[in-house]
Amino acid sequence: MRLSQMLLVTLREDPAEAEIPSHKLLLRAGYMRRIASGVYAYLPLLWRVLQKIARIVREEMDATGAQECLLPQLQPAELWQESGRWDTYTKAEGIMFALHDRQGRDLGLGPTHEEVITAIARDMIRSYRQLPLHLYQMQTKFRDEIRPRFGLMRGREFIMKDGYSFHGDEASLKQTYLEMHRAYSNIFRRCGLDFRAVEADSGAIGGSGSQEFMVLADAGEDEILYTEDGQYAANVEKAVSVPPDALPSPFTTYELRPTPGTDTIEKLCQFLQCSPTQVVKNLLYQVVYDTGMTVLVLVSLRGDQEVNGVKLQNQLTRLAAAYGGNTVLSLTVPDAEAQAKWASQPLPLGYLAPDLADTYIQSVPHLVPQFLRLVDRTVVDLQNFVTGSNQPDYHMVGANWGQQVSMPQRVVDVRKARPGDRAFHDPSQCLQTARGIEVGHIFQLGTKYSQALGATYTNEQGEEIPLVMGCYGLGVSRLAQSAVEQSYDKDGIIWPVAIAPYQAIVTIPNLKDPDQIQAAEQLYTALNQAGIETLLDDRDERPGVKFKDADLLGIPFRIVPGRSLKQGKVEVGQRATHRVEEIPLDQVVMTLQQLIAVATE
Amino acid sequence: MRLSQMLLVTLREDPAEAEIPSHKLLLRAGYMRRIASGVYAYLPLLWRVLQKIARIVREEMDATGAQECLLPQLQPAELWQESGRWDTYTKAEGIMFALHDRQGRDLGLGPTHEEVITAIARDMIRSYRQLPLHLYQMQTKFRDEIRPRFGLMRGREFIMKDGYSFHGDEASLKQTYLEMHRAYSNIFRRCGLDFRAVEADSGAIGGSGSQEFMVLADAGEDEILYTEDGQYAANVEKAVSVPPDALPSPFTTYELRPTPGTDTIEKLCQFLQCSPTQVVKNLLYQVVYDTGMTVLVLVSLRGDQEVNGVKLQNQLTRLAAAYGGNTVLSLTVPDAEAQAKWASQPLPLGYLAPDLADTYIQSVPHLVPQFLRLVDRTVVDLQNFVTGSNQPDYHMVGANWGQQVSMPQRVVDVRKARPGDRAFHDPSQCLQTARGIEVGHIFQLGTKYSQALGATYTNEQGEEIPLVMGCYGLGVSRLAQSAVEQSYDKDGIIWPVAIAPYQAIVTIPNLKDPDQIQAAEQLYTALNQAGIETLLDDRDERPGVKFKDADLLGIPFRIVPGRSLKQGKVEVGQRATHRVEEIPLDQVVMTLQQLIAVATE
Repeated sequence: MRLSQMLLVTLREDPAEAEIPSHKLLLRAGYMRRIASGVYAYLPLLWRVLQKIARIVREEMDATGAQECLLPQLQPAELWQESGRWDTYTKAEGIMFALHDRQGRDLGLGPTHEEVITAIARDMIRSYRQLPLHLYQMQTKFRDEIRPRFGLMRGREFIMKDGYSFHGDEASLKQTYLEMHRAYSNIFRRCGLDFRAVEADSGAIGGSGSQEFMVLADAGEDEILYTEDGQYAANVEKAVSVPPDALPSPFTTYELRPTPGTDTIEKLCQFLQCSPTQVVKNLLYQVVYDTGMTVLVLVSLRGDQEVNGVKLQNQLTRLAAAYGGNTVLSLTVPDAEAQAKWASQPLPLGYLAPDLADTYIQSVPHLVPQFLRLVDRTVVDLQNFVTGSNQPDYHMVGANWGQQVSMPQRVVDVRKARPGDRAFHDPSQCLQTARGIEVGHIFQLGTKYSQALGATYTNEQGEEIPLVMGCYGLGVSRLAQSAVEQSYDKDGIIWPVAIAPYQAIVTIPNLKDPDQIQAAEQLYTALNQAGIETLLDDRDERPGVKFKDADLLGIPFRIVPGRSLKQGKVEVGQRATHRVEEIPLDQVVMTLQQLIAVATE
Repeated sequence: MRLSQMLLVTLREDPAEAEIPSHKLLLRAGYMRRIASGVYAYLPLLWRVLQKIARIVREEMDATGAQECLLPQLQPAELWQESGRWDTYTKAEGIMFALHDRQGRDLGLGPTHEEVITAIARDMIRSYRQLPLHLYQMQTKFRDEIRPRFGLMRGREFIMKDGYSFHGDEASLKQTYLEMHRAYSNIFRRCGLDFRAVEADSGAIGGSGSQEFMVLADAGEDEILYTEDGQYAANVEKAVSVPPDALPSPFTTYELRPTPGTDTIEKLCQFLQCSPTQVVKNLLYQVVYDTGMTVLVLVSLRGDQEVNGVKLQNQLTRLAAAYGGNTVLSLTVPDAEAQAKWASQPLPLGYLAPDLADTYIQSVPHLVPQFLRLVDRTVVDLQNFVTGSNQPDYHMVGANWGQQVSMPQRVVDVRKARPGDRAFHDPSQCLQTARGIEVGHIFQLGTKYSQALGATYTNEQGEEIPLVMGCYGLGVSRLAQSAVEQSYDKDGIIWPVAIAPYQAIVTIPNLKDPDQIQAAEQLYTALNQAGIETLLDDRDERPGVKFKDADLLGIPFRIVPGRSLKQGKVEVGQRATHRVEEIPLDQVVMTLQQLIAVATE
């Protein structure tokens, strides 16, 4: 392509709408334009990048035997009502755009396709002989994000690859799940990305196990904890670890101590001259289930630890059935107004004991439908610990489970793992931290959707049982921007060669020099004929402008017929390293073929 | 691909939802499944067909220098308000799905992209040096059709290629328009379709000239008129022709004749023993413009001719400015209730004279805001004609323009051309008729959108003037089904080789015969290695079932290692002709390569 004929408009200034480097650079280099909040037009250069990523994804997916299809973006509400997600997606979270047609029927714009694909499976799969089956698609998805931001990172309209597999049993699912793990790793590797597969929370999609594929970048919205040996990596939302050992308690006998003005762990430890590891802190939450039922939850964990909100939410969701519900609608710390509804007096939130129920709550039992205690693993083995007393300005010291306070049945892991914690698989290793951009997520769904929609098959024994499912998402447009976020410098983008919009650019420094023009045209033709996608900068601009634009665009290799043309040589420069070599004209094609082969393995 | 691993579910019975052959066959052969009214899942086989069409479209578009991009499906209402189409598209016609986001902002789901692309051009194009520019995309589009039907023919969600070109002047637009005509012709030819490019009405898109590309098929929704020599072809909505000559009038003197019970042309001509070509019939319409203004329109045309509603609507739209408006909201024949609002007595609709205004309307002028007379060309030269008298059961005979009735200024062409009419370019040829499916439509838009959105550029003289635009649509999913509608038999689909999901299928008649299995596996591998996309029917089914499925799927070439395997031969059958040859095993690949080369040129 000749730049003189291409839609190329580069900007010198960073656009006001952009916050992170990749977003700024993609706008400045003319790869995209914003049409509405979180909605972008992908201009020709970006479209080439997206097509290259799509091709790699397709090759790796097809190699596993998955079959590509295309499912509708308009989805009838009925299917989402069958799965029980319509209200959650369109109202509670409001993440799905909802609309109605001229007949007044409700439709949603697909943010994901479990419902549609399960309805197809219900219609088409009858027998174990049709299993396993894996269908995937690459498609524009929609999410009505609360805060669309960072360009393609969190848009309201974006391109996803999503795949869904159907199995006769868990073993077959696990096999496909492992194949997808390999396929995703290949995709990210081939796209030239530094990434990590991490254990992940399954969120609203549901199911038993899931892993995220994180592209490592400082601007990533996710925190990853990992060990150096590569044996463990997890999203901080999901991560587990061995907490630091607790110090032995200095308090050998039980006592109720006045501790005035110590409503934080920090103040308390300073006052008592003790370690936070010797303290049991007790945190009160108010949970509202989808049935409307309110439950008070008291979480006890070690003073030096923090609650992981996602883990807590998952624990509470698992308990939802006990309250006749499915999901948690809200999880909050009850403020004075909320407390007034069921507490006889304002609760001393900084001084709660692990047994709140016995004092404040039981005094007004008819107002509080349920009360629940959860104890984090970190406090189970503590002895002679410090904890609240349910009286302002007083703490218990030297307390013990089963003596001053009872130990509830539910011992759980709701603590947040931290960098520096020891790893479970090898306590000699400490967890390290990195930031990542979630670009892929693979799930073992199990029978959640097949049961809800009645998608069954007949097994070899003639029994009709629900299909076992997996699902596998990959953000194609997000991947493109992640590559930029991971690879740029002060001059612009540095595309990995495999997904660069063009591999090479031939720049004519001086349009008045017929020798330069002749050499450039000849190279442009020869390179394209050799299958090397090449741009020709034939614009009537100063050389400086052309070089700046080539750097900003991030084209991996630049060929300049300049001063050394008299010696039959041209400059071949590498964008990533800024290394420039003089290469004889007749060796340029071969040199580039070698450079590209090395860069894409 | 092995059929044992593919999602293949064929149906013996025609699905109740399908009316036309292509729709039935695509459902029966498992190419797609209905998810909602006018919304289909494209299953793996259909997706391969669509990808092949997309590849051909892409190659032909790229060859013209057009650049591929991807524009958003979510479009902000503001852009459509700027062009003046928001109300028409979301309310009057209601063809665009409208929704609002969590901030309450209005969005539309793109049925077309003139607004978005013009906004991008406004942002990015500054100078004549950037012109001409042509951007295109392939994308799912949405239309909230009143009657979704015929599967992919008239769906609510469908795949389109749409392209938009920007120019400095009309001459440049015309050049690109011609290039697109060639590119579209290449696309349809390469896809193996029998098609015709016809002159077309520009409809709601607007602009000066447009052509449709029609795939010829009996089930087509459009009627085409054309001449045998290929010099003329038009959609009947747009077609022009020379009407049959009028017979000389038998009435030589003017007279007001009693003609009781002759409120149709047929009854009148029978009563008066004259030809319909000697009659001027006068038809009354009530037009409501977008300003709310009502206009009565009296159309006079020859008794043997009919009004073409699209031509009439276009004439009235052209006159809209005179009434301060932009578009026609409705065009109806006024019934008794409507008449009561402005007529002093019920109008004698079968007996109207060409000068209704002088009698009925002027009696109550304050109630009728405007009255308009249009005269079709067919009546201008009539002499001594028969026409209505504005009195029930009376007609004028031997009337003449300028004598008994005045000739209005506006002489127009609003008649419907018919098969058998003579062609303008060569009156020795008669127009013939065919039915077609509109699969492509190319438009010369001019400055309609660039003026509305203020998309200008600076020309070589330094003047800032509006961009001149063209737009070019092609229905990718509709093309796929059109190919089936044009090519099937009682056994199933007959895909054109270029867009068949697979080119060949190797069928193993008997899975218990190891020789058959070995030969089939060997051929399957060899064919795929030679780049011939081949299926292997390795299912444990009876041979009859396999042959039936292969015919239903419409795979062009079938290879069967059967009885002649002992002589080292296999059967190679052609789906289209049912011709079967015995070919030595080692010549199968070469034979198929030749057959495919011939079939795809």
